[in-house]
Amino acid sequence: MKIALCQINPTVGAIKQNKELIIKKYQEAIGLGAELIVFPELALIGYPPQDLLLRNKFINNAAVALDEIAKQSTIPIIVGSTLVENDQLYNCSYVCANGQIIDHYKKILLPTYDVFDEDRYFKSGDQPVTVKIAIGPKIKKIGLQICEDLWDHTYSRNLAGQLKNAGAELIINISASPYRVDRLVDRCNLIKTKVDNTGIPFLYCNLVGAQDELIFDGQSVVYDGKGNLLAQGNSFVEDTIIVDFDNQEPIELNVLQREEKIYNALVLGVKDYFTKTGHTEAVLGLSGGIDSSLTACIAVDALGSHNVHGVSMPSKYSSEHSKDDAKELAQNLGMDYQVVSIESIVDSFEHSLKASYNGTEPGVAEENIQARARGSIIMALSNKFNWLVLSTGNKTELAMGYCTLYGDMNGGLSVISDLSKTDVYALSRWVNENSDKERIPLNSIDKPPSAELKPNQIDPFDYDVVSPLVTALVDNQKSPSQLIKEGADPELVEDISRRIRINEYKRRQAAPGLRVTSKAFGMGRRVPIVNKYDELSHD
Amino acid sequence: MKIALCQINPTVGAIKQNKELIIKKYQEAIGLGAELIVFPELALIGYPPQDLLLRNKFINNAAVALDEIAKQSTIPIIVGSTLVENDQLYNCSYVCANGQIIDHYKKILLPTYDVFDEDRYFKSGDQPVTVKIAIGPKIKKIGLQICEDLWDHTYSRNLAGQLKNAGAELIINISASPYRVDRLVDRCNLIKTKVDNTGIPFLYCNLVGAQDELIFDGQSVVYDGKGNLLAQGNSFVEDTIIVDFDNQEPIELNVLQREEKIYNALVLGVKDYFTKTGHTEAVLGLSGGIDSSLTACIAVDALGSHNVHGVSMPSKYSSEHSKDDAKELAQNLGMDYQVVSIESIVDSFEHSLKASYNGTEPGVAEENIQARARGSIIMALSNKFNWLVLSTGNKTELAMGYCTLYGDMNGGLSVISDLSKTDVYALSRWVNENSDKERIPLNSIDKPPSAELKPNQIDPFDYDVVSPLVTALVDNQKSPSQLIKEGADPELVEDISRRIRINEYKRRQAAPGLRVTSKAFGMGRRVPIVNKYDELSHD
Repeated sequence: MKIALCQINPTVGAIKQNKELIIKKYQEAIGLGAELIVFPELALIGYPPQDLLLRNKFINNAAVALDEIAKQSTIPIIVGSTLVENDQLYNCSYVCANGQIIDHYKKILLPTYDVFDEDRYFKSGDQPVTVKIAIGPKIKKIGLQICEDLWDHTYSRNLAGQLKNAGAELIINISASPYRVDRLVDRCNLIKTKVDNTGIPFLYCNLVGAQDELIFDGQSVVYDGKGNLLAQGNSFVEDTIIVDFDNQEPIELNVLQREEKIYNALVLGVKDYFTKTGHTEAVLGLSGGIDSSLTACIAVDALGSHNVHGVSMPSKYSSEHSKDDAKELAQNLGMDYQVVSIESIVDSFEHSLKASYNGTEPGVAEENIQARARGSIIMALSNKFNWLVLSTGNKTELAMGYCTLYGDMNGGLSVISDLSKTDVYALSRWVNENSDKERIPLNSIDKPPSAELKPNQIDPFDYDVVSPLVTALVDNQKSPSQLIKEGADPELVEDISRRIRINEYKRRQAAPGLRVTSKAFGMGRRVPIVNKYDELSHD
Repeated sequence: MKIALCQINPTVGAIKQNKELIIKKYQEAIGLGAELIVFPELALIGYPPQDLLLRNKFINNAAVALDEIAKQSTIPIIVGSTLVENDQLYNCSYVCANGQIIDHYKKILLPTYDVFDEDRYFKSGDQPVTVKIAIGPKIKKIGLQICEDLWDHTYSRNLAGQLKNAGAELIINISASPYRVDRLVDRCNLIKTKVDNTGIPFLYCNLVGAQDELIFDGQSVVYDGKGNLLAQGNSFVEDTIIVDFDNQEPIELNVLQREEKIYNALVLGVKDYFTKTGHTEAVLGLSGGIDSSLTACIAVDALGSHNVHGVSMPSKYSSEHSKDDAKELAQNLGMDYQVVSIESIVDSFEHSLKASYNGTEPGVAEENIQARARGSIIMALSNKFNWLVLSTGNKTELAMGYCTLYGDMNGGLSVISDLSKTDVYALSRWVNENSDKERIPLNSIDKPPSAELKPNQIDPFDYDVVSPLVTALVDNQKSPSQLIKEGADPELVEDISRRIRINEYKRRQAAPGLRVTSKAFGMGRRVPIVNKYDELSHD
């Protein structure tokens, strides 16, 4: 009994192209001897399709494309798409064979939290479905699941148990499970629990690719009825895994090192954003600092060094070492590098503003003029040459509001906006350790971080303390009072949590950022701008 | 029997301040002889509280504040807040009297569409609740509802009928119903249907105020059991209406003219965004065009002319009449006006970019440099003087992507981003017609719109045709093929719908905009950036 899991990389909305990809992979799998071929959740329309699901024509087009897949089917195929029944929309797993749709299952558990909005679009199916499928010479009763159905314990349900009781001989879960650190291990532990409880094999086919802020990791897995892992799809690439149940040796789960996982996720995130929006070349500001260095490195690995343009934009406050470090980085990475000075631009701004600024002391306004002059230069190159701007800010900085709106925040995609400053260091060191030569200049890693917007400025935070506190507040959603109870400095916690709150307005206008943690700024964190809730307030 | 509906303007997260506001209005209403006093949905925490609802401490604080209200209660009060029961969160209507909470109702219908995400936070209540309340000397059985419960027909439910069957003698619906054009009439027609079907009075207490993108209009209403309107709260201001059921004459529903409604909504939107974020003064660019003129006018009416700063930022392409019109507007409105030329700034940019741009033809990149120089000047004034920047783009322009990211799109709040170009003209004319002197210079209304970013440029759209098509596609969610079927030019529809699709990336980084239509760009329209769905594609 040979079953193929095709973890494909569809594009949201590209129904025709996705259909052709599914048919191509289906036929390839048949060529490899597969007797049942499985595709991920909503593979035909891409995930998450968001408000495209509200367009009738879109849903109709998907139905037509599904019919075409069914018509071309010979041996059985399982694929995700939508269904309209009594004016209600469902997220479905379809089983097709011999030229027709033979059954379907309507997703029961609809995630509506964090980045998920499925209740906005779908009605929940009301019962588990098992379907008899001819897999080669055998007829097997298969239990169908879709993604969140696996996490049934959080809804006090037991969908896997119900499938087993209904006679399922194996369970096939089609997924579009967004990547975040440690997701693979969580997922596999959960699958093993299901196998322990039911004693039947569990096949999990996951989407791969990136869509706006989300990255899908693939890493489809197959467990036999004893809880042995039989196969694992590659991470962050399309892959077809074929399991021959009569003839398969157990393997060990391949869990990459934390830094490698995150790095590879971000490379895929950049690559797909470019490919799927029709861009080839990127441009970014190189300050000589660690954030832009790591971003450049990821971009080069995603797009090729010849497609990445680095720009150094020195002002009168830029140190020699910054310019040297930026240049060295570009040389190390083999990427294009140019220097555009902002000195005379900043002078012109200050001159034009002289009358308006009359009598005021220099401060943040003057610093921001520099950041915005750089932001405008980068955009001027982007507009002229159709290079997509990569924003280089990290999560700690975005949390604290230590960044300039319409300045260094400019960009079409924010590459490391979900990495804490601690993670930025860890990934940068990992990059150098896993290359035969130094890619990120050691000086960029070792020197104290500075925005260099005024003389002898260094970042006003001790990142060793601040970065973990931001992670605790944002990623782990701990409350300020809990952190203080755990021993953190009350004044510092109060300052950080206030900054996170009052800088929501900046993040609302930030470039979309690639999500790799359990709670990223962006679509999965919906905090009001007008927000007077201050837990530690003594009012 | 005297019942008071207090349409108050709470602030999201300001639990203590909201509690005090509720107690103050409660006591005032008692002073006016009210025997039952009603407050809107989630009045204690503000609406929509979004992810604040995920914080345990926030929910606990709300529970403590509710207890304090209950403890201070003498005559009955109905007020909206949250409830946790068996680890589930509910959106509740609480009835308190004589120092305690005497009953509560859990909202049954949870809107999860457009700007609403209630399924993300709340569990649905499973049954209608009637409660016996002593209103003066009488004991009345009251049916409780919360907002969306009124719209039960769209869920194939009949909650009002169920309340009537359970013996309700009147229905009290507490709401936080975001404003959009024609909402009042829809709402009142629906209430009248409920009264027709049940024959009992219906009291509807709505929130007022603005929160981020949303504006709440107040306009609470009371209908008697025969369908007569007995009272209507003022629009867009706090108001307490007291109905004496034994002694009240029917009135006519007061429906403002379309332009007046929208204008007043936007004035409140600006006012509350400033008040609630702690800002007093606004700054905006004045181009002499109609968009910035209307925005300035709204800002002056919201904040006072002494708090609004207009900046003209001429370039070498700026016409004399533009500068004159901007100045005249500022004089008409009595607001601060200054001129900051961008000519030398643009020259510096062009000089600095000379090597990079070598051999290219001037185009959009050069035009955007001007827009971004202006954007940076406005931000430089904002940063220096703590003036909040108002963005002046309209919806038609945002749809078409005819605006510059990090340039004219800059701002903390986008005032007219939900107004079509057609509405911008209509409101501008209305402003002048309803003032004893010309406020917006006629020339700004009459001249052809131009961005003036190159010689003799005028906007490349016939707004008389394009503006209604954008409205049909975005607000009315018609499909391109439907519009073509209805007679629109196929090429134009194809071009507009393509522009709307490919400019999602710009709108994702736009300032939050005040919503006044049924479908605004922003939180209620979630369209992917990577989006290959082109209905009219011939691929």
